[in-house]
Amino acid sequence: MKLLSKFTPPQLLIIIFAISIMIGTILLKLPFATIESISWINALFTSTSAMTVTGLAVVDTASSFTLFGEMIILVLIQLGGLGIMSFAVLIAKILGKKIGIKRRLLVQQSLNQNSFGGILTLIKYLFIFSLTIELVGTILLSVVWIPEMGWIKGIYYSFFHAVSAFNNAGFALWQDSLMGYVANPIVNIGITSLFILGGIGFTVLVDIWRTRRFKKLALHTKLMLVGTFTINLAAMLVVFLLEYTNPDTLGSLATLQDKLWASYFQGVTPRTAGFNSLDIASLREPTLFFMILLMFIGGGSASTAGGIKLTSFIVILFAVVSFLRGKEELVISKRAIKQSIILRALAITFLGMLFLVAGVFILSITEKSPFLSILFEVTSAFGTVGLSMGITGSLTMAGKIVIIFIMVLGKLGPLTLAFSIAKPARTKVKYPGEEIITG
Amino acid sequence: MKLLSKFTPPQLLIIIFAISIMIGTILLKLPFATIESISWINALFTSTSAMTVTGLAVVDTASSFTLFGEMIILVLIQLGGLGIMSFAVLIAKILGKKIGIKRRLLVQQSLNQNSFGGILTLIKYLFIFSLTIELVGTILLSVVWIPEMGWIKGIYYSFFHAVSAFNNAGFALWQDSLMGYVANPIVNIGITSLFILGGIGFTVLVDIWRTRRFKKLALHTKLMLVGTFTINLAAMLVVFLLEYTNPDTLGSLATLQDKLWASYFQGVTPRTAGFNSLDIASLREPTLFFMILLMFIGGGSASTAGGIKLTSFIVILFAVVSFLRGKEELVISKRAIKQSIILRALAITFLGMLFLVAGVFILSITEKSPFLSILFEVTSAFGTVGLSMGITGSLTMAGKIVIIFIMVLGKLGPLTLAFSIAKPARTKVKYPGEEIITG
Ligand SMILES: [K+]
Ligand SMILES: [K+]
Repeated sequence: MKLLSKFTPPQLLIIIFAISIMIGTILLKLPFATIESISWINALFTSTSAMTVTGLAVVDTASSFTLFGEMIILVLIQLGGLGIMSFAVLIAKILGKKIGIKRRLLVQQSLNQNSFGGILTLIKYLFIFSLTIELVGTILLSVVWIPEMGWIKGIYYSFFHAVSAFNNAGFALWQDSLMGYVANPIVNIGITSLFILGGIGFTVLVDIWRTRRFKKLALHTKLMLVGTFTINLAAMLVVFLLEYTNPDTLGSLATLQDKLWASYFQGVTPRTAGFNSLDIASLREPTLFFMILLMFIGGGSASTAGGIKLTSFIVILFAVVSFLRGKEELVISKRAIKQSIILRALAITFLGMLFLVAGVFILSITEKSPFLSILFEVTSAFGTVGLSMGITGSLTMAGKIVIIFIMVLGKLGPLTLAFSIAKPARTKVKYPGEEIITG
Repeated sequence: MKLLSKFTPPQLLIIIFAISIMIGTILLKLPFATIESISWINALFTSTSAMTVTGLAVVDTASSFTLFGEMIILVLIQLGGLGIMSFAVLIAKILGKKIGIKRRLLVQQSLNQNSFGGILTLIKYLFIFSLTIELVGTILLSVVWIPEMGWIKGIYYSFFHAVSAFNNAGFALWQDSLMGYVANPIVNIGITSLFILGGIGFTVLVDIWRTRRFKKLALHTKLMLVGTFTINLAAMLVVFLLEYTNPDTLGSLATLQDKLWASYFQGVTPRTAGFNSLDIASLREPTLFFMILLMFIGGGSASTAGGIKLTSFIVILFAVVSFLRGKEELVISKRAIKQSIILRALAITFLGMLFLVAGVFILSITEKSPFLSILFEVTSAFGTVGLSMGITGSLTMAGKIVIIFIMVLGKLGPLTLAFSIAKPARTKVKYPGEEIITG
């Protein structure tokens, strides 16, 4: 503990994260974890992909891992999704230990939370919500998969994909993800509800649970609700219009209803679920480019999602509109937004782009794949999305290492990394009363 | 004049710009302007490309236009480069007319100037500097081209390329731009000096001319000098390292000195000259991607360059670093930078990206070219650069129209367009004493 106190919270978070990934790597390298032995780099990649809830896969999950291996991946997903830090605090709480400032700060960091109070309550809700939602999701998916595979396999598949979906992990036990269920309403509704709930942010869920009336919700909650609805609807429309005549995607589906389900699923998955029910590589270039934008934006703060976060995008959008109107102050929904929030959103976006650009630059040197598939892959890693145009398995060693770094960066957030390098004494930033979480 | 007073300065600027492009289009459509008749869209594209000093060419300049056509292009370049507005004011001044507030605002807008005083002085300097530098450039280039082509053609070529270079127009009278002079020190020094001087911004030149001591220079001037030197050196290094072993570019050059000249030229031309001495399409993907970043950043404010401008990039960079260090205020070189400047830089960058993304999105629908060449083409248009991976000539009608829009947008700046839509009464933004021009 004395050693630990030498580090700042962001540094500690990175260290704990790295150690967890290492343990995961070793476990996945065990002989009984895989059907045929996998390389160290592939074990590291898989462990990182699970722990960061990305879902990019260098080896096919179902055909490469044993049940034990799959369970390791599931545990890593759950650890990564709920945040190792909340686990640590929870365990300490259970053991009756006093929770010090330092440890609170750590959890706060890992949940991208700025306010200090109510962390413990948040974690309590976090666990109750997560387990409840995952349970309900398992039951819902069982309706489809028990009749299809029998009781044991059906429940296992339902549980695995419910956990994977709620944590926005994108790991699936079919090589073609959920393409086999492109037209199945229950799978479509079940999986998307799980990852939207997991990706909108726990603070939003807690606020809705406690408040229940839209008008009284926190500004952050309102922005997330309206923003999520708007961007998902727009994305669904764009996929529908661009892919309608594509014989390899929507064109191959029989009915309008099927096409709508597929448009909806492919519209909402890039921010940052990572499952797919259409073949990603067969999508048209504009659709892929649009998905790249969605992957960069990502889901909600304090959620299982990655990216710069929807609120960062909204704050920047409003700040620009406000500037163009010559306003002195940024006002959203009758609340003044302090400059530090704008600067925070700007810093996250700028750093995100910087890392993205660096990643694309390096991969364009090390890989021979077309530029668009490289840009897609790197953005997918940054947004911890897991969608791929199909180059993950054939990445070079250097390429894999870069993607591993970017997945970790995407999960921890650009600011955590930046603050871990910055001087501790200077990292204190004051936050206003009514805040929007943007990280 | 009564009709004109109904418009805001940004709207007027767009209208005058559009009219000039139309006149250019009609002149280029005249039978004696071209060797073989060109289509209306190609005439419009060429007129826009010249007027916005971009240099993207749907038809080869030298083999398609007569001497008359070339002179039209040169006049459009000079008009576009120095700003039609400064011409208007100058003519009015010569005619002894009183120069009203409205007209001053117009010029201010077209030069991306925020301060009000000294506009007339600036324009005086602008003309003297431009003509002097173009004349010196012509003489310098004549040293190479008169011995090669004889007096008349040699002087004409020197004059054409001096004007084209100083105005960062990128139009050349060789189909392969300056590839024939890749190892010629005089052409390398002459052309790059011209476009760097033209692209750094007139206010910088005036400040250096008047002040002469680095310490006493305006903050804007210091930033531009240090920034230009740093980014050019870095770009030269990147091109050298990435292309050294490429048999189609640096690898084909005989000596180290030749390779260095070519690295230097290709490093400095993307912000926003647009000439090339290596085959752009043969460059490696990472080099092309790096060039895209340079093209987006662009040159200096109040210059012949496009892009978001180097100072916008620097201000955002410093703002992010300042935020990470937990500072309350952005301080550059012991000067406090007001929030409005940060917001302005943010707005320019965000809007620039928005238009870029929209352009790439549309072209990825209308064109069949690889994604990278589309991204390269659109960024080149936005930065009014003129470099291309070779798809300009084969663009579809829709693609040409989009690129025409983006060239105009890139030349006028995203803010001019945005402010032309925004309500006039709200466009007034206060600026501080020590300012950095970011538009
Ligand atoms: K994911
Ligand atoms: K140019």
